[in-house]
Amino acid sequence: MEQLTSIHNQHVKDWKKLQTKKARQQTGTYLLDGWHLVQEASKAGIELLELIGTADQLVAHSDLTTMAGHVYEVTEEIMKHITDTVTPQGIAAVVTMPDAHRMPAGPLKGAWLFLDRVQDPGNVGTMVRTADAAGFAGVVVGHRSADLFGPKVVRSMQGSQFHLQLFEGDLRKWIADFKSIGAPVFGTQLNPQAKNFRTVNPGDTFALVMGNEGQGMSNELLSMTTDNLYIPMRGDAESLNVAISAGILMFQLNQNLD
Amino acid sequence: MEQLTSIHNQHVKDWKKLQTKKARQQTGTYLLDGWHLVQEASKAGIELLELIGTADQLVAHSDLTTMAGHVYEVTEEIMKHITDTVTPQGIAAVVTMPDAHRMPAGPLKGAWLFLDRVQDPGNVGTMVRTADAAGFAGVVVGHRSADLFGPKVVRSMQGSQFHLQLFEGDLRKWIADFKSIGAPVFGTQLNPQAKNFRTVNPGDTFALVMGNEGQGMSNELLSMTTDNLYIPMRGDAESLNVAISAGILMFQLNQNLD
Repeated sequence: MEQLTSIHNQHVKDWKKLQTKKARQQTGTYLLDGWHLVQEASKAGIELLELIGTADQLVAHSDLTTMAGHVYEVTEEIMKHITDTVTPQGIAAVVTMPDAHRMPAGPLKGAWLFLDRVQDPGNVGTMVRTADAAGFAGVVVGHRSADLFGPKVVRSMQGSQFHLQLFEGDLRKWIADFKSIGAPVFGTQLNPQAKNFRTVNPGDTFALVMGNEGQGMSNELLSMTTDNLYIPMRGDAESLNVAISAGILMFQLNQNLD
Repeated sequence: MEQLTSIHNQHVKDWKKLQTKKARQQTGTYLLDGWHLVQEASKAGIELLELIGTADQLVAHSDLTTMAGHVYEVTEEIMKHITDTVTPQGIAAVVTMPDAHRMPAGPLKGAWLFLDRVQDPGNVGTMVRTADAAGFAGVVVGHRSADLFGPKVVRSMQGSQFHLQLFEGDLRKWIADFKSIGAPVFGTQLNPQAKNFRTVNPGDTFALVMGNEGQGMSNELLSMTTDNLYIPMRGDAESLNVAISAGILMFQLNQNLD
């Protein structure tokens, strides 16, 4: 175990840099902040490359220290510096980031969520977490969405990245792939002329596409889907947050968990 | 029209104070920040007691200035001071706060949402907004929940307070009132032994109770309901945010908008 007390230490600088997409891509790693996430990773069999904790916290959870490649005891000041949390719990870990551009393992199967230019990291993370709860097999984030392994997305996912498959990619290609195996792809549209979401019966393998917070899905993607769905609601079309809409649709379309 | 340039002006101090519950209760008013909210109020026939704007914004929306009791032209510094927004739009209005402890007008009817000690203002506001979209008639906030007319709740409600009835009160009394007219009250519980939410058929008049973010509903309220509902999900019980759960349940229980 190494003890670090200065925020100018090179390790500390490297951890801090993991808040940027560039450093995450260069190193192929990202930071988990807090016990819940570190434990979820450990439960999922993810190797803790580096475990970083305050003295108190490392003692309190000595079971995890034996499982980590390197253990660093740091000050609370360093903890605050490397996380973007106001009151960090005093524990963090560096783990390998899955290659979001890999090919899916095996044939496409189950329920999938596609995100088209969703910008808010909290929305992206909450939708991944909800997809997990709804029993979805995977989430694909299209270009110009919030980065899947940024600190705010990771915090909102609450460990769901360890329970389902996450990808980044060209949604046009993903939609074409689903349609080529006869699986329906459902877009979403703030348009009462679209299909009432309660009237579709998607079967076991399908994809649902959610769009940008302000503008919705792109016209190009809307024209590629099997059907576009609408949630009938009172009042104007801005009445539902995108993460709430996604939750309503995912639990309606995937009822295999009952 | 009065021009104000100092944050030490008494009006400015009074507006700033409306961020506190005490000042809102003493004056019976609250602040709407931004054009969308001011316009929603105006559309709903709510009197704009005081309209506060920067010079540019007052010119751009001169239609509203004629409808306000008093109009104040202020600096951007004052706008920032009285709102808790990082980049305020430059317009705000003081309006009368409905008496949340009044008696409901007419017999209890339609779908209602009860909030038991929901603490996060964003969650409370989002749930009111979602209840509005789902065609609910009203929302009742129990004791020790976030205050309905605090700045963050008001921002998250996005004007839904003008479309449905809002109350504060003792949820034990509200539950008893619904049951006394034969209307079911559905609690929510993170417990697979509770009733699957897809199996209930609530009829036109009912109430749904959502609980605290960490602890859920109180045992006392759970024991008073007609039934307690559960959303079947994968993995552990913490997998759904309370506002997402509320959205899924409200759109399942109230399908009268199709």
